[in-house]
Amino acid sequence: MVASEFVSELRHRYGIEFKDLAILDEAFTHSSYVNEHQNMGLRDNERLEFLGDAVLEITVSDYLYRHYPTLPEGKLTRMRAAIVQTRSFSMFSKEAHFDRYVRLGKGEEAAGARSRLTLLEDLFEAFNGALYLDQGREANVKFAEQVIFPHIAAGEFDANLDHKTALQEFVQQDGEVKIEYQLLSENGPAHARQFKVDVVVDGQVLGTGVGKNKKAAEQDAAHNALTTLRQAPSAGSASTGS
Amino acid sequence: MVASEFVSELRHRYGIEFKDLAILDEAFTHSSYVNEHQNMGLRDNERLEFLGDAVLEITVSDYLYRHYPTLPEGKLTRMRAAIVQTRSFSMFSKEAHFDRYVRLGKGEEAAGARSRLTLLEDLFEAFNGALYLDQGREANVKFAEQVIFPHIAAGEFDANLDHKTALQEFVQQDGEVKIEYQLLSENGPAHARQFKVDVVVDGQVLGTGVGKNKKAAEQDAAHNALTTLRQAPSAGSASTGS
Repeated sequence: MVASEFVSELRHRYGIEFKDLAILDEAFTHSSYVNEHQNMGLRDNERLEFLGDAVLEITVSDYLYRHYPTLPEGKLTRMRAAIVQTRSFSMFSKEAHFDRYVRLGKGEEAAGARSRLTLLEDLFEAFNGALYLDQGREANVKFAEQVIFPHIAAGEFDANLDHKTALQEFVQQDGEVKIEYQLLSENGPAHARQFKVDVVVDGQVLGTGVGKNKKAAEQDAAHNALTTLRQAPSAGSASTGS
Repeated sequence: MVASEFVSELRHRYGIEFKDLAILDEAFTHSSYVNEHQNMGLRDNERLEFLGDAVLEITVSDYLYRHYPTLPEGKLTRMRAAIVQTRSFSMFSKEAHFDRYVRLGKGEEAAGARSRLTLLEDLFEAFNGALYLDQGREANVKFAEQVIFPHIAAGEFDANLDHKTALQEFVQQDGEVKIEYQLLSENGPAHARQFKVDVVVDGQVLGTGVGKNKKAAEQDAAHNALTTLRQAPSAGSASTGS
């Protein structure tokens, strides 16, 4: 059962009160926990994750459509992609303390799954799936108003370019350079695959990234490279200019 | 302006009456038409397409989640991907006669854009985006009940399910049932053995199958049972019930 501390935190921080606590339990039950407790007849959070993924997609799309009334489709799509992805969802998940309450199998716990970005992302999606089933989509919008939209309003996704494009624009300000993404590793079971990728700029590794798939890992690597580049003292080109 | 013939067709075929005809206009205005009529201050349908894409994603996801209560996440995801894609959306678009009513630039018209699958897909998304803005998500579900869900219920996207799983999902929509496969006979020489199997659902034989081995015969029996069940007039699985 979900900790009563969590139920209380959801109530006080977000004004959320689940009618059906079983569905909240399901959202915070990792498949590794189910596998270790097969006699308990538990369900893992993967189906809720499937549903929550789509709920978040419409919640964010609706917000962007209405709040950026003149933004062309291409930029809306890139902005949505920057929000609906591992890095952002895992950050939101962590801010909401979801990592504290997930039920993990012992092996996964030992392997550090509790702070794995893709696990945090899955939790965020599963929670939104559960909330949608329990209370309908308006509840997801209210939750997003507290957890997602402030980040958008703060301009955190205004680069409006995906990270790979942003990195390309950043490093090519002074002429053509060669950017490559190299797959380092691919780990984990099919339902929780993790990819690790290096971004190499003119032969130099500038960043490493992880994600659920190669594309997500590449985005993460580009983002990390950009962060490093922007912090570098020599970043005369520190402003993105776009 | 959208043809009055189309407004009338939407009303009679789908019971849809737009409050704001301007948004319906926008959904059926291709960028090539806007480019050729720049003095008219028109908007093309691309932003609505962005929104409609997400609306369709949640509409289909919600349906699959509720109608396949035991299907694991991986199969749900594959099934959603088979539905939410160019080939399917362009087919739905054509069935709804959307190709007849889109406003195209002359160049695109001459190039045959009216029957281009990606254009039909975009139209389908834009229409759903417009419907969502005009009347809210319930209207999209009602439209999907007429245009999308019957295709799903007819098993057109079941390819990624094996027949035994598909049969189980189909008959268990209304609660737990017992499915058994009974070996009827095993004939022929070793190199050309033939197995014959009955599939029995809650005590009733629903199909018979043959195959080289027991497994193949069971798949065949499940497939035959499903074909029979789907042709039955009482195949009321088309309603969303949610």
